[in-house]
Amino acid sequence: MLFCSILVATFAFCVTKPRARDLGVPFDGNPGASNAITDVKGVEVGHTTLISGEGKLDVGKGPVRTGVTAIHPRGKTSNDAVFAAWFTLNGNGEMTGTTWVDDSGFLNGPVMITNTHSVGVVRDAVISWKVKHGSPDMEGYWWSLPVVAETWDGYLNDINGFHVKPEDAWHALDTANSGPVEEGNVGGGTGMICNEFKGGIGTSSRVLDSKNGGYTVGVLVQCNYGSREQLRVAGINVGREIPEHTVWQKDVGSIIVVVATDAPLIPTQLKRIAKKVSLGLGRDGSYSGDGSGDIFIAFSTANPGAVGTHGVHQLSMLPNDSLDPIFLATVQATEEAVINAMVAAETMTGINNHTVIALPHDKLREVLKAHDRLAK
Amino acid sequence: MLFCSILVATFAFCVTKPRARDLGVPFDGNPGASNAITDVKGVEVGHTTLISGEGKLDVGKGPVRTGVTAIHPRGKTSNDAVFAAWFTLNGNGEMTGTTWVDDSGFLNGPVMITNTHSVGVVRDAVISWKVKHGSPDMEGYWWSLPVVAETWDGYLNDINGFHVKPEDAWHALDTANSGPVEEGNVGGGTGMICNEFKGGIGTSSRVLDSKNGGYTVGVLVQCNYGSREQLRVAGINVGREIPEHTVWQKDVGSIIVVVATDAPLIPTQLKRIAKKVSLGLGRDGSYSGDGSGDIFIAFSTANPGAVGTHGVHQLSMLPNDSLDPIFLATVQATEEAVINAMVAAETMTGINNHTVIALPHDKLREVLKAHDRLAK
Amino acid sequence: MLFCSILVATFAFCVTKPRARDLGVPFDGNPGASNAITDVKGVEVGHTTLISGEGKLDVGKGPVRTGVTAIHPRGKTSNDAVFAAWFTLNGNGEMTGTTWVDDSGFLNGPVMITNTHSVGVVRDAVISWKVKHGSPDMEGYWWSLPVVAETWDGYLNDINGFHVKPEDAWHALDTANSGPVEEGNVGGGTGMICNEFKGGIGTSSRVLDSKNGGYTVGVLVQCNYGSREQLRVAGINVGREIPEHTVWQKDVGSIIVVVATDAPLIPTQLKRIAKKVSLGLGRDGSYSGDGSGDIFIAFSTANPGAVGTHGVHQLSMLPNDSLDPIFLATVQATEEAVINAMVAAETMTGINNHTVIALPHDKLREVLKAHDRLAK
Amino acid sequence: MLFCSILVATFAFCVTKPRARDLGVPFDGNPGASNAITDVKGVEVGHTTLISGEGKLDVGKGPVRTGVTAIHPRGKTSNDAVFAAWFTLNGNGEMTGTTWVDDSGFLNGPVMITNTHSVGVVRDAVISWKVKHGSPDMEGYWWSLPVVAETWDGYLNDINGFHVKPEDAWHALDTANSGPVEEGNVGGGTGMICNEFKGGIGTSSRVLDSKNGGYTVGVLVQCNYGSREQLRVAGINVGREIPEHTVWQKDVGSIIVVVATDAPLIPTQLKRIAKKVSLGLGRDGSYSGDGSGDIFIAFSTANPGAVGTHGVHQLSMLPNDSLDPIFLATVQATEEAVINAMVAAETMTGINNHTVIALPHDKLREVLKAHDRLAK
Repeated sequence: MLFCSILVATFAFCVTKPRARDLGVPFDGNPGASNAITDVKGVEVGHTTLISGEGKLDVGKGPVRTGVTAIHPRGKTSNDAVFAAWFTLNGNGEMTGTTWVDDSGFLNGPVMITNTHSVGVVRDAVISWKVKHGSPDMEGYWWSLPVVAETWDGYLNDINGFHVKPEDAWHALDTANSGPVEEGNVGGGTGMICNEFKGGIGTSSRVLDSKNGGYTVGVLVQCNYGSREQLRVAGINVGREIPEHTVWQKDVGSIIVVVATDAPLIPTQLKRIAKKVSLGLGRDGSYSGDGSGDIFIAFSTANPGAVGTHGVHQLSMLPNDSLDPIFLATVQATEEAVINAMVAAETMTGINNHTVIALPHDKLREVLKAHDRLAK
Repeated sequence: MLFCSILVATFAFCVTKPRARDLGVPFDGNPGASNAITDVKGVEVGHTTLISGEGKLDVGKGPVRTGVTAIHPRGKTSNDAVFAAWFTLNGNGEMTGTTWVDDSGFLNGPVMITNTHSVGVVRDAVISWKVKHGSPDMEGYWWSLPVVAETWDGYLNDINGFHVKPEDAWHALDTANSGPVEEGNVGGGTGMICNEFKGGIGTSSRVLDSKNGGYTVGVLVQCNYGSREQLRVAGINVGREIPEHTVWQKDVGSIIVVVATDAPLIPTQLKRIAKKVSLGLGRDGSYSGDGSGDIFIAFSTANPGAVGTHGVHQLSMLPNDSLDPIFLATVQATEEAVINAMVAAETMTGINNHTVIALPHDKLREVLKAHDRLAK
Repeated sequence: MLFCSILVATFAFCVTKPRARDLGVPFDGNPGASNAITDVKGVEVGHTTLISGEGKLDVGKGPVRTGVTAIHPRGKTSNDAVFAAWFTLNGNGEMTGTTWVDDSGFLNGPVMITNTHSVGVVRDAVISWKVKHGSPDMEGYWWSLPVVAETWDGYLNDINGFHVKPEDAWHALDTANSGPVEEGNVGGGTGMICNEFKGGIGTSSRVLDSKNGGYTVGVLVQCNYGSREQLRVAGINVGREIPEHTVWQKDVGSIIVVVATDAPLIPTQLKRIAKKVSLGLGRDGSYSGDGSGDIFIAFSTANPGAVGTHGVHQLSMLPNDSLDPIFLATVQATEEAVINAMVAAETMTGINNHTVIALPHDKLREVLKAHDRLAK
Repeated sequence: MLFCSILVATFAFCVTKPRARDLGVPFDGNPGASNAITDVKGVEVGHTTLISGEGKLDVGKGPVRTGVTAIHPRGKTSNDAVFAAWFTLNGNGEMTGTTWVDDSGFLNGPVMITNTHSVGVVRDAVISWKVKHGSPDMEGYWWSLPVVAETWDGYLNDINGFHVKPEDAWHALDTANSGPVEEGNVGGGTGMICNEFKGGIGTSSRVLDSKNGGYTVGVLVQCNYGSREQLRVAGINVGREIPEHTVWQKDVGSIIVVVATDAPLIPTQLKRIAKKVSLGLGRDGSYSGDGSGDIFIAFSTANPGAVGTHGVHQLSMLPNDSLDPIFLATVQATEEAVINAMVAAETMTGINNHTVIALPHDKLREVLKAHDRLAK
């Protein structure tokens, strides 16, 4: 896949970075054009990546390996909410704004993902960004309850230095785009660790058959969970066959999963979608350890204007018994997005010279091949 | 109010039974024609009342003071589901079928209320009744997951004698009607005790102003909770001023609350309605003791056909910020339905000559008057 | 494994029935003596298996392919509750008694599993069984709220004939035992279908290392979910390579999962255990379709007497950060119990000569071997 | 009650401010020494009150009418968690940190309350405060998930000016104390509006009879909800009889309720306590409008050390059927804390010269007297 980044560099550079499919990892289902959450029309993703300093940790100074990722359900210029719901598989984490997602059935504004200790600054920055762009809320309230999630990057990042600033959140919000999504060591995923390989942002999508409505399901993960020992790729215990350079020999960390679809679903249905994410993680070998903040949010870009404040609204809804292909797509795209995060991430050295290795592509292929699980 | 009963007698009799408003208890809001859940168009209520035997308990023989109440959201001949949601304030009780209400957002079929130890027989009887009338499920599944709730009547009834039979459930289903709803010692409420007065079935409704859409909210309770000490009527601690013949001097028992509306609400919104029931009980002085099964279900008769299995459905939905009048109506109708249950119920003697007195109407009026709280 | 059944026959017979491990399916972790939920001390399992008739469906007459399974957390003679919690992955099913499990944190009495349309009869039969054995409730209440779950067996069984009787529930309760657990076409699992192979009851267990406390985790499933297409065994898409004789080419049906442990866990922790079951199903390829009732309950046999009604109780509790090995054991035992159900079940022909084939053992081994995933 | 404030002034002043009981409002139950949440031993409360500027709103400049309130469950110097649980009656609000409260069963650190748009800054400030005082987490994790709640003060305060700074959170944390709690226009409650009277912080407590264990239940509210029309004091519709100077003639705003107890309760039980708060609000006339963020958290200071990371912990737990007096105390203390907030708050003028009047004490007494509801 050709990918051009202008986000963290002052000049653009283009590389061909392989993704999991490019390496021959077999996945079920039919991905969209970018195999990304942005295949759901309207969805835009922006990253702010903060990398600076080297060597010994000096709290407040660095080294810095962190960032912010913004996901706009209807694009950065929309002032319209989406139906949404969320689910917690394991609660050792944070996603703000969820009581109102639960009760209103709507997500008003972006989903933000950052590091654990910067949730607050990003949350308030979303409000100031909204105020700057009009009003704090799409439903007509005078207040805003932003959705901000996190995973912990303190193995590589000076997390107690609080390096994320309001400007970093605004930058992710302002530079979000449709099209291919940068993966790996970017945005909120910059300093993240996944199954004791370098992790971060990953994404994937599925497009349903036209007989199933032709809807798109997109998933974006900030992958920071898992143990090497348990990692399964395409069902194979790949982690055990690459035992080098593990980090903690247990499941530390978390995963945030964002599911987008253009299928016309009401919040009750989106709650079910959010729950199915667990099954995708199960395929990858997760057991969702005590330290995990495994929190998922799902939204539908159908039904524009549903949040409006006057009159009776007209909605579209799929019947429940048409949901199976969407459930399956969610499971499949989750399974793939996690692997994509690891495939894209590159070896990183952070505070105190902690180093986390990238998943070695050749070794991955080798293991899959030995189990006759290589797609090409 | 003129009320004619043909349910438990072999000939019809008509009496003018006062309801709480008739006694001058002040309530806010504007009730519908019958001040009953059946003011919501389509809703039908049927009771089977089982009263037989006297004196010492002989398990399996009696005395019997129990029954079944059936509430059809769209009438007994409809084969269409309604959007629904439920909530538990205190879980020492049972309402079957709720995991599917949660996940599907629909209530398929009636809500049944009976005694605690007859939930099973009534549940299976709903299935056999459905099978007899076509198919077990409105969503096209080959199975049925009926909603059956209960409160405990073992102080007056031979509850371990299992006197409710499938025929009793069928009878309540088959004889359900719109129009005025019999209250007090009828149906599932036959042997129930409310705030240590005789309780049972109570109902009430509210009609919103046309500027708020003119929707109707109806509530039906099977009232079996509460302590005399805590009972408040119209805000006044009436229970303390009628200390005679208490039953257990604490909060034993439960309350089931069914809320119906014709407002076009999706399940997320109905969940919120169900939660607001708590506030109506709070007004009546409930503290929802450990022994209580305080379980509430809310449904909307709008959006007929929403459950259908094919294509994309078109729905109507009120915006969230139009819900306040419906929330308030729910609180008000709950507050009143509980008082109506006690006002309608009559002193009953059951097993082992246990007697539970009716709320004395004159004394109630006297207490309210002393506090300048009598409406007329 | 040597297995002797005296449950459904009038004389004992002994067979050596292989289980998944015996066939060389590789699983992680260390199972207990019976690799069964009964490895958790105190847990007893009983089955009533109802098989009669052949040929065309004659509702009420048969053919009958159904039953009841009873799980006593502390044995059939105990009158002590266990801490418990439950979770719904997909709610198209029933588990009664769960509002009180939620609010009390206790499971009072057995967990029963049967077919969808017999939940009621089994529920009330548990009450009559309890009344016969003393009192309806372990907490001192005068009522009982039994936990009864189900899956749908109407493809093979005359489910609308309501063939399960109170006696069948009592028999399962009365004949429950510790030791090896019969799997496959027995008890509630008699007529069940799992990934479009014959399914039913399956079980497995894990024993933790002594450094992790040496606790046991046992799982029992009534497996009736899944599509052939999605089935994964040990990570391999075995279902696709055995495409013969599928049933519906989609995910119809459900799975009930019961998790037992002797680890001293409070209900909050058991809730997390129940959620982790999803990850085990994910490993087996589940996507938990709309028609699934995927409902899980977890209990701990530690803390006997915790339910008592007087004074302040002394409890033991593991710290949260000791839970990881228990989470992992839950995932592993769930993964294995599902496969065990299919391995044990035998081809069955039921109503209208519907036939569901057993998972062919040789073919299973062949596929795993082709992927270098055979343990022996 | 004698109360000395040194928080907002540069010199101390002492006044005798009456509380609701002092005015003769009748409440049930027996309050503790300070009739405050701090009657629960160990609980400390601190306020930072920010009041500056007058006249026209100049966003970023003021006027400022806001603040922060900190509640330490075990005092500001403790590094030990408490069992906790939370509940949302209406979710149009925020309480961060709740997924981990749910899953861990613990509250690690203080509960903070501020204005809606300052939740983020306060959240991150709690982390920096914790880091400064040792480690970010009591459970041994390297991260922290603070609990911060809010209500909206933008009618009086320049809320989009983001005037709360980390120092303000630290100050509330550092100056927290046991003993009497300042109420009304202080801390997070500074700019709040309750039933269209000036609201803010209120508190109350109950001490159980020794036969019920002699436990203390304390409640603190940040009261910003309600409509004048619905306000009930001691059951009387006081609001309607003081119709002057209403604010919006509907229910705008929210209420945060914190319940503390020294009763030995596990999280499952605390969840039930949190739910019962609704009943106290019901007594005061709340209908919990769509705009409300009615979010409650309950914790128990019993079981010190329960969060520790090694070995098996020994806990104390009250049996469920001893909870009734605690449920009732929760309802009663909630009912009173709301009224206390209004009684303590003083008329305030904020942005754009918006003025919100205090509940007139004499008029309150007059109305209660007319209904024979004055205690003295």
